[in-house]
Amino acid sequence: MIVAMQENATEDQIQHVIAELVKRGFEVHRSTGVTQTVLGAVGAKVDFDIRDIEVLPAVGQVHRISSPYKLVGRTFRPEGTEIRFRNGLTIGGKEVVIMAGPCSVESRAQLFSTAEAIAAAGARVLRGGAFKPRSSPYTFQGMGEEGLKLLREAGEKYGLLVISEVMEISQIDLMEPYIDIYQVGARNMQNFNLLRELGHSRKPIMLKRGISATIEEWLLSAEYILSGGNYNVILCERGIRTFETFTRNTMDISAIPICKKLSHLPVAADPSHGTGLRDKVAPMARAAVAAGADSVIVEVHCAPEKALSDGAQSLYPNQFAELMDQLRVIAPAVERKIA
Amino acid sequence: MIVAMQENATEDQIQHVIAELVKRGFEVHRSTGVTQTVLGAVGAKVDFDIRDIEVLPAVGQVHRISSPYKLVGRTFRPEGTEIRFRNGLTIGGKEVVIMAGPCSVESRAQLFSTAEAIAAAGARVLRGGAFKPRSSPYTFQGMGEEGLKLLREAGEKYGLLVISEVMEISQIDLMEPYIDIYQVGARNMQNFNLLRELGHSRKPIMLKRGISATIEEWLLSAEYILSGGNYNVILCERGIRTFETFTRNTMDISAIPICKKLSHLPVAADPSHGTGLRDKVAPMARAAVAAGADSVIVEVHCAPEKALSDGAQSLYPNQFAELMDQLRVIAPAVERKIA
Amino acid sequence: MIVAMQENATEDQIQHVIAELVKRGFEVHRSTGVTQTVLGAVGAKVDFDIRDIEVLPAVGQVHRISSPYKLVGRTFRPEGTEIRFRNGLTIGGKEVVIMAGPCSVESRAQLFSTAEAIAAAGARVLRGGAFKPRSSPYTFQGMGEEGLKLLREAGEKYGLLVISEVMEISQIDLMEPYIDIYQVGARNMQNFNLLRELGHSRKPIMLKRGISATIEEWLLSAEYILSGGNYNVILCERGIRTFETFTRNTMDISAIPICKKLSHLPVAADPSHGTGLRDKVAPMARAAVAAGADSVIVEVHCAPEKALSDGAQSLYPNQFAELMDQLRVIAPAVERKIA
Amino acid sequence: MIVAMQENATEDQIQHVIAELVKRGFEVHRSTGVTQTVLGAVGAKVDFDIRDIEVLPAVGQVHRISSPYKLVGRTFRPEGTEIRFRNGLTIGGKEVVIMAGPCSVESRAQLFSTAEAIAAAGARVLRGGAFKPRSSPYTFQGMGEEGLKLLREAGEKYGLLVISEVMEISQIDLMEPYIDIYQVGARNMQNFNLLRELGHSRKPIMLKRGISATIEEWLLSAEYILSGGNYNVILCERGIRTFETFTRNTMDISAIPICKKLSHLPVAADPSHGTGLRDKVAPMARAAVAAGADSVIVEVHCAPEKALSDGAQSLYPNQFAELMDQLRVIAPAVERKIA
Repeated sequence: MIVAMQENATEDQIQHVIAELVKRGFEVHRSTGVTQTVLGAVGAKVDFDIRDIEVLPAVGQVHRISSPYKLVGRTFRPEGTEIRFRNGLTIGGKEVVIMAGPCSVESRAQLFSTAEAIAAAGARVLRGGAFKPRSSPYTFQGMGEEGLKLLREAGEKYGLLVISEVMEISQIDLMEPYIDIYQVGARNMQNFNLLRELGHSRKPIMLKRGISATIEEWLLSAEYILSGGNYNVILCERGIRTFETFTRNTMDISAIPICKKLSHLPVAADPSHGTGLRDKVAPMARAAVAAGADSVIVEVHCAPEKALSDGAQSLYPNQFAELMDQLRVIAPAVERKIA
Repeated sequence: MIVAMQENATEDQIQHVIAELVKRGFEVHRSTGVTQTVLGAVGAKVDFDIRDIEVLPAVGQVHRISSPYKLVGRTFRPEGTEIRFRNGLTIGGKEVVIMAGPCSVESRAQLFSTAEAIAAAGARVLRGGAFKPRSSPYTFQGMGEEGLKLLREAGEKYGLLVISEVMEISQIDLMEPYIDIYQVGARNMQNFNLLRELGHSRKPIMLKRGISATIEEWLLSAEYILSGGNYNVILCERGIRTFETFTRNTMDISAIPICKKLSHLPVAADPSHGTGLRDKVAPMARAAVAAGADSVIVEVHCAPEKALSDGAQSLYPNQFAELMDQLRVIAPAVERKIA
Repeated sequence: MIVAMQENATEDQIQHVIAELVKRGFEVHRSTGVTQTVLGAVGAKVDFDIRDIEVLPAVGQVHRISSPYKLVGRTFRPEGTEIRFRNGLTIGGKEVVIMAGPCSVESRAQLFSTAEAIAAAGARVLRGGAFKPRSSPYTFQGMGEEGLKLLREAGEKYGLLVISEVMEISQIDLMEPYIDIYQVGARNMQNFNLLRELGHSRKPIMLKRGISATIEEWLLSAEYILSGGNYNVILCERGIRTFETFTRNTMDISAIPICKKLSHLPVAADPSHGTGLRDKVAPMARAAVAAGADSVIVEVHCAPEKALSDGAQSLYPNQFAELMDQLRVIAPAVERKIA
Repeated sequence: MIVAMQENATEDQIQHVIAELVKRGFEVHRSTGVTQTVLGAVGAKVDFDIRDIEVLPAVGQVHRISSPYKLVGRTFRPEGTEIRFRNGLTIGGKEVVIMAGPCSVESRAQLFSTAEAIAAAGARVLRGGAFKPRSSPYTFQGMGEEGLKLLREAGEKYGLLVISEVMEISQIDLMEPYIDIYQVGARNMQNFNLLRELGHSRKPIMLKRGISATIEEWLLSAEYILSGGNYNVILCERGIRTFETFTRNTMDISAIPICKKLSHLPVAADPSHGTGLRDKVAPMARAAVAAGADSVIVEVHCAPEKALSDGAQSLYPNQFAELMDQLRVIAPAVERKIA
């Protein structure tokens, strides 16, 4: 931590700040310039609140130097994390993995029809929501465990891994037999109790970015999971809230290369929620792969106009197949191929 | 709902949209202008996704007319909601109620010393956190039930009601005997399962605005609680995330008069989290009362420099007393007085 | 325009609103539903302020139906605009045009060395600033006309068109002989007097999006130029201001397909200003082309570590050549090629 | 400036960074901790781009210590700036000055009727726009010099000072004889050429905050004016752009106490543009005074329903008079009175 004293700080005030730092266990280095004194404090605990120093008299600015996360940082595992699944698929390696499926599992017919189509087009993971708490109290709330069973069955039949969203601690054990990847939604990105429990699971977690989360906050949430012992976390950019209202969210494509640099974790992108508009999904999926994403997760529905939720942002199967062809052209530009 | 067709829409396309609306149970009114056809659709269900119409061919724009909330709207109870407590205090009436106390309950000595000071200055409700999941996995996590007991005891001793944050469904029953008001934090504003359970409680709920929640989303979250039967909800503005980084959040003072107009629910303000900076708390507390807030909740600590959390935004007891004096001057400007 | 009356509106209040609309020249259609009356008003002038109706008694919501721009809309020229230059280059057609060069023209040696390198790598337009008003009053302010002359000379020598930023009306005539495209910077996006003057120029204008401009405001600024008679406008996305501080701005890649749909104008992307970080420029340039951009403008400097401005976001020539190779791989995915 | 090296930085890399700093004229202090080396660099020029160091190998983070502005900083004039006018009025002292008037000067009758009403209610400065470039190219553009003459005449008649917006350098000389305060609008906050010219004027400048300007950028724009020799600048908060769309802008009331602390300049607030909604103007005006504003500027129109611009956010004269009464109650809470 660096403490820059105000230009008019007195020696007494400087000594007071030094004493406060030492009391908190810091080792202090002092630099006295012509106009200003700067203190370097080494040995901060992660939970230190820098505002405790900021409010001391004659303190100008305080900057934290060490990053607040440890396990998720790129330096912890410079070669990057590759998550390997039982069927040989890896996420975070040379291959870009495409996940697809409906927003919600609605019925056997809907799910199997969609799963067959996405598998034929080249997707490797099947997505589908079983629990759907919605922002209005008056809406469809998901099929629950029955939906999970259908996902597992469809996955087996079409050779797809399965990802589904977990919303509460109580759902973890219920979901465990059915899914290959737990998805944590944007609204739960800072549900720390849930994250801590998932840290004890041995299955990979896809952690979506909160719509108003900074990249640092997002990585700190991932740290919760890793600190519990589960190192298989996939970060997933899905749009942030900005002043622009044309799209539901503004998809932050630049977060992809940034996370790849700051962290060793694989990075995915969700252009369906990132835009909320069907005809913007393919352009943003292409952009994500071009920017270096390790995975893309896309909402596809066998009949979007009949979907119980998010039909307007779901691709038709033939649109998805066309997108897959485009992604196969783009991947080599970043020395990748589609899995 | 209003559907504005594109200027070049064909009659077939218009008929297709009408058919889709009718299929969904709408009654349709058609207005044909010189350049454009506009359809009025009456009878929408609350859970209707307007994007299902937006994606139809030749549709220009779709606007929802009816508000997505019912019970929280001002028209539901034009005279406004007054929440009455067993000791005669009311929130939402002529008196402005000040709540104060430490971020976290840390010890008996800390809590009682603080409670005594705020009661003497004129606060009517004691705040204090018992559960403190933090954004870093490496920090102080609260005293739990022991903290709740201390809150109750201090409240009794100094004639204060008690408010504390509930973070999970499992904590509701545990907290019930100890507190007078449940607080739902900004991160849980869209934890719909929690909100639904709180709808079955008979104790008032203070619902904080999420840092990236629009006012409409916030009111819709309140609707979850009211739809469960609990009409005693207090909205609490506590700052939104913007590009400005000087303060932790930008406190949206204008949300106070807006919510008072849109809804019958009382509106509170939290200038401590709204700014994150001690010397900005008093100005923003004054601003909130001047703008029409029914309540203000402020972090006060008997010794902020020793606080285990949020010390930098906690007032000293004498600062709080001074603030109370200022608020007593301001309240009459809006035909109120401090409770 | 659609006016939704409040549910409890009286017949007198409805008649008052109708009268106000008729007074303003609207033709009014009325739809009376079970709970609510909705008025459709046709014939609005573009400069109508809908708030004048919003403030009338018992009015619930007012929505503008017709878009506020005319000439820039896709329906005005459904086939899209292709801007043709004297040397046969077109922007907005099948070919994606890459523009490159230094932030500022600093010297003949710097400019010619950079121009030679970018031409060799495949750029077709040379960029470079001659006027550099900066956010600090104490910095390098550009070479002025001497810089423009160098740009022209370098362009001729290496077969490149020339683009440079115009900041004031008084510079238009000065720049005219030297440049092929005027660039309007983000800060001038709503300098309407400047835009109006540029509407009388016969040279193409690249109009950058303001850092807090909605897409609608951006298109309305373009409308200013077109309404003066100059239809050759290139929209350029260059990042918007959000809460994320890791990058200078958040580049809104989704604005590219959105603008392509809403407008017939070509759309460019500036990943250098969009990110402000050298190692994020190539990923975002690739993303832009993958998302459908018609042009990309990139800062390249023969020796970025010596640049007088923006060195940290400028590519080295070899990095730019590598990027060009990647873009040649990606363009066919969107049925384009690099010019 | 502080340069924190990455944890794995080699001695060669550290020496390279030191050399680069020295080359740029810095004096360098080195602190070597157990895990990390930190360099303190003293003597930076204001125009130094810290990204030039950020991009060097093995550099972790770079923080600027000294503030980028000098003349506007509170330390430059700790007692605060009081701007004195020929009629004895001061802005920045014990008295809070209220400015009011129409958005645009529309006619003699409109202006004089409004001026009479606001003077009677206690306003001390008359506002009114003479030049009105609008975001649509198809709207009313102002009365020009004729409007300025009317302002001057109305000001003389009713004992009011006059403020009006300057939009271009060419208008400065034209406006000089008619106005007492130049207003710089939000869109021109970073029109540095205009700011530099106004730095040579001897009349006070009210500098509005840009809708997406950080407080630091705003103060740096004020620095442009002061660095030209004109120290009489009034900062004016008028709302920032956020994700919330209920109001046109989100008025950042906390910017008032922040600017009062960072700078010696007086701070005003514009609740009319800050909210864009008539019934939110009074609450936010009260909030601004309660938070410590030195001045409030409010749009008032003798007949808002007939206003050519911004009628929906203009107060009726009787509403303004009522607001003045409320402000007189509030001001003593901050040891002020209404001028």
